[in-house]
Amino acid sequence: MNGSPDKMAQDQLQQFRASIDNLDAAFIHILAERFRITKAVGEYKALHKLPPADPQREHEQLERLRALAVQSDLDPDFAEQLLNFIIREVIRHHEKART
Amino acid sequence: MNGSPDKMAQDQLQQFRASIDNLDAAFIHILAERFRITKAVGEYKALHKLPPADPQREHEQLERLRALAVQSDLDPDFAEQLLNFIIREVIRHHEKART
Repeated sequence: MNGSPDKMAQDQLQQFRASIDNLDAAFIHILAERFRITKAVGEYKALHKLPPADPQREHEQLERLRALAVQSDLDPDFAEQLLNFIIREVIRHHEKART
Repeated sequence: MNGSPDKMAQDQLQQFRASIDNLDAAFIHILAERFRITKAVGEYKALHKLPPADPQREHEQLERLRALAVQSDLDPDFAEQLLNFIIREVIRHHEKART
């Protein structure tokens, strides 16, 4: 039934979902580009004999991200966990590239 | 020393890091917007007495994301893990909102 409360609720839900799908696509592409760069960084560090890890850089990165999360009303602990999740995957890639 | 191989390597590394920082900022803002929408979805579903979970929708979402990951040369398993990580946080928010 067009115009029924149920139909309107489903339409609105559909709008929300279309936004979530767009954001998820952007998210995936940003991640893919981030991995392209961290891969290049790994190769570059190996070539120039730079140390693979840089704790000072990682600390600054984390603090910056937590501040950005707070500004955009996102839980900074969640942002930190997510970054750590991504960094673990970056390290796994680097280790795989070395073997 | 300007122009030394070490200096050039550090400059190039700085360029990579500036790109990673930009992508991370985009990433955080996309996530923040995604949570704004999932929060609205949770409230909307509660108001309209729609079921909180929709396994069919979740399945389609996951398949679409995996396909996007493959297209952009990102590990689809990693993309799936990351989406699940985010969805768990969404559920945690919904549960917190109900108590």
